[in-house]
Amino acid sequence: MALWTSTGGKFLKGAAGVPDVPDLDASKVTITETKDLKTLPDPETLVFGATTSDYMLTCAFDPATGWGTPEIKPYAPIPVDPMSSALQYATNIFEGMKAYLGPDGEPRLFRPDMNMARLARSANRVALPPFNTEELVKLIKTLVNLEKRWIPTLEGYTLYIRPTIIGTRAGFGVAASDSSLLYIILAPSGPYFRTGGSKPLSLMTVEDCVRAWPGGTGDHKLGMNYSPGFNATRLAVQKGYDQILWMLGDVITEAGAMNFFVVLKSESGEGWDVVTPMLDGTILPGVTRASCLELAAAHGEKPIFDDLPPLRAVERKLRKGDVKQWLAEGRFLEAFVCGTAVALAPVGRIGFDGEDVVFPKFEGGLGPVGGAFRRRILDIQYGRVPFSNWSVPCQ
Amino acid sequence: MALWTSTGGKFLKGAAGVPDVPDLDASKVTITETKDLKTLPDPETLVFGATTSDYMLTCAFDPATGWGTPEIKPYAPIPVDPMSSALQYATNIFEGMKAYLGPDGEPRLFRPDMNMARLARSANRVALPPFNTEELVKLIKTLVNLEKRWIPTLEGYTLYIRPTIIGTRAGFGVAASDSSLLYIILAPSGPYFRTGGSKPLSLMTVEDCVRAWPGGTGDHKLGMNYSPGFNATRLAVQKGYDQILWMLGDVITEAGAMNFFVVLKSESGEGWDVVTPMLDGTILPGVTRASCLELAAAHGEKPIFDDLPPLRAVERKLRKGDVKQWLAEGRFLEAFVCGTAVALAPVGRIGFDGEDVVFPKFEGGLGPVGGAFRRRILDIQYGRVPFSNWSVPCQ
Repeated sequence: MALWTSTGGKFLKGAAGVPDVPDLDASKVTITETKDLKTLPDPETLVFGATTSDYMLTCAFDPATGWGTPEIKPYAPIPVDPMSSALQYATNIFEGMKAYLGPDGEPRLFRPDMNMARLARSANRVALPPFNTEELVKLIKTLVNLEKRWIPTLEGYTLYIRPTIIGTRAGFGVAASDSSLLYIILAPSGPYFRTGGSKPLSLMTVEDCVRAWPGGTGDHKLGMNYSPGFNATRLAVQKGYDQILWMLGDVITEAGAMNFFVVLKSESGEGWDVVTPMLDGTILPGVTRASCLELAAAHGEKPIFDDLPPLRAVERKLRKGDVKQWLAEGRFLEAFVCGTAVALAPVGRIGFDGEDVVFPKFEGGLGPVGGAFRRRILDIQYGRVPFSNWSVPCQ
Repeated sequence: MALWTSTGGKFLKGAAGVPDVPDLDASKVTITETKDLKTLPDPETLVFGATTSDYMLTCAFDPATGWGTPEIKPYAPIPVDPMSSALQYATNIFEGMKAYLGPDGEPRLFRPDMNMARLARSANRVALPPFNTEELVKLIKTLVNLEKRWIPTLEGYTLYIRPTIIGTRAGFGVAASDSSLLYIILAPSGPYFRTGGSKPLSLMTVEDCVRAWPGGTGDHKLGMNYSPGFNATRLAVQKGYDQILWMLGDVITEAGAMNFFVVLKSESGEGWDVVTPMLDGTILPGVTRASCLELAAAHGEKPIFDDLPPLRAVERKLRKGDVKQWLAEGRFLEAFVCGTAVALAPVGRIGFDGEDVVFPKFEGGLGPVGGAFRRRILDIQYGRVPFSNWSVPCQ
C-alpha cells in the first residue's frame, strides 16, 4: 500500500510505477556551526522539555528526489506552508529518547532500535514516507555527540531527544503527504514530575474521553494521541489527581502518557506476576514497558535481582474489577507507571469513577519490583551494568 | 475547565486566578499590501485546494496579552517552533467554507455562524484558547472582499476558505497550548471530485481502521481526524472504490470526509424519509448535513420542492443491515454524501466487507432528493434564492 519501502539500503524501493528514490543517508550530513552558543543553564533550574540545545538536525523528503541532505544547524523556527499536511491533517509523528553519559563520560542511547522501529511504524500509520532506521540512529548519535555539553550530569536530569517527522505536502486534498520533513531536537530536562518520581502518583478515570480504540491510533506514537487528553488531564489536576488513567469501558489501557503495571502474588503462590495491558491495538508499545517485561522474564529464568522472588511477565486485558479483586484478596503488591520521560514512578491511588482505591505505600515511593526495575534500568541506561546490548554508545 | 471564555465582547473572561485578556478584534486588522500579485490561473486548470491566493490573515494569541493584531499580508510560510504543540501534539483545528459570488457580483458566505460555532467547539476539544466568533466572521469577510478577484466564476469552481488555528506553545510537557496562531487562507478550487460530482461514488468499508469512537474526536473538526484514514483510502482506490465508508462495528458513520445520507420510502407509505446517522459523538456535525435535514424538515411542513413528496428528516443509528433490508424491501430510493467541499454527490455502490451492494442509478447522478437539495443549496449559496438568512453577504 505504501508508495516506498525502506530496505535498509541506499534507495527506497518504489511500489509499482513509483521510481526508487534515495533513502536517508547519514554520511551526507552537513554541519553549519555557530559561534553564538548559548550559556548552559543551571541544571537545577531545568524542567521537562522546555529548553533546547544549540543545534537541530533537519532532513527533507521529496517524492521526486527522496531523502535529501541531513543538515545540522542552529536551532530555529521552521518555515511551514500554512496548507501543509502537518498543520492541516496532523501528519506528525515523533519519538522520545534520552542521552546518558556513561562511566567513560561519553554519551549513550538506550535501545534506539526500538524507537526507530516504532517511528517507522508511526510513519506508515499516517502514510508518511519511510526511512532507513539505522541511518537515523547514526544521525541522532552525530547530533548528540556534537551537543554532548548539554547532557546534564545531575542525577535525574537528562538530555531528552525528540526525533520528529511532519508531512509537508501543501494542499487541502484529504490524501497522504508524499513530502515530509524529519527533524531532531534536544531538550536538556529536569524530572518529568516535579516530585522527581518518588511521591506516588494519583490517577483518575474519566468516562467521556477515550484515549484509544481498536482501529484507532493509540498503539502508534502520533502527535494526535496527546492533545485530546489535555482537558481531561486539567480536570484531573483540578480534582487533586496527577494524571488520567485511560479506560476503554472497564478496561485499563494507559496512565497519562505512560504504560501502567501492577505486581501481584501469583495465583500458584510461587513468585510474583508483573502485569501490564497486552498490546491489543490500544496500547503504546513503550520501550520502558518492554524493558520491564523483559527484565521480569529474565529474572524468572535466572535470578538477576537479589531480593526478588521469581517473576512472571504477564500481558493481559486488565480490568478495573481485577485491580479491586486483587486488593480484596490480598494479592495486590504494587502499581507503577513507566515511560522514557519518567522512567518508572509509583502509583498510590486510583479514582475509579469517583471511588478512590488506595494502594500500599513504600518507603522511597516505588515498591520492591518497581524500585528494582528502576534502579536496574537506570544502571543499564548509564552504562553502569551491561544487559543485552540495550545501552548503545554514541561514539 | 478552560482558562478563558469568550463572552462575545472585547475581553476573554479568565477562569479563577487567570486575568482577562483581549478577545479577537476585527477592527484592529492591518493590511500589508503587495504589488507583486499573482496571475489568476485559468479556472479550468484548478483542482481542489492546491492553489492559494495572494494574501493570508494571521492573528496570534499570547496568554499574557490575549489576541493580538490581525494581519493581512502576502501568503508565505509560517515560522513554527520545532517544539510547538501543533507539530508535536496535533493541536490543529480548522474549518472548510466557501465564498460565492451573488447575482450582484459581490461575495457571500454560507451559514458562517455554524462554522464558527464548530471551530469554537474544536478549540475547546483540544484546549486551545477561545475567540469571539463574530469577529472572526468579520475578518473572513474582510479577507474575502480583498481577494474577490480569486473567486472563480465558472460553475462548480469556488474560492475555498480555510480558517485554521494551531497551538504554538513550545515545550514537550504533555499539556494544553496556552498560545496559538489563527490563520485564514484561501484556495481557488476546482470540483472536489474530478468527475464533478455527477458520477456516482463507490464506497468501501474497512475493518481495521476506525475513524471515530465515543469519547474520541470524530465529532469535532480536528486535523487528526483525517491522516489516520489516508492508508485506508489509498487501499480503497487500489480496489476500485472512491472513498471509505467509515464503520463502527456494523454501524455506518461517515463517508470519506463527508456525511452520509439515504432516502427511503416511509414505513407509513406516505412520503419519504431522509436519513442520516445521528450525532452520537462519532459524527461530524456538517453544515451541509444540517442544511439537508433542515430543508427536508421545511419541505415536510410546507412544500418547497415542486416534484418531491412530503419529506421527513430522520437522524438515527444507521446499520449495514438496515441498508440491505431497505434495498430488499424495495423501500430504498437513493444515497448521497455531502460536505462543504463536495456540496452533494451521489453514491452508487458500497462494498460491505467485499460484498458489493449496488444502488439505483439516476440520470445526472443524484436521485430526486439529492438533486433537488443540491440545486436548492447552490441556489441559496449563490444568493439566487433566499432561505432563512443562510446566505450572508461579505459587504
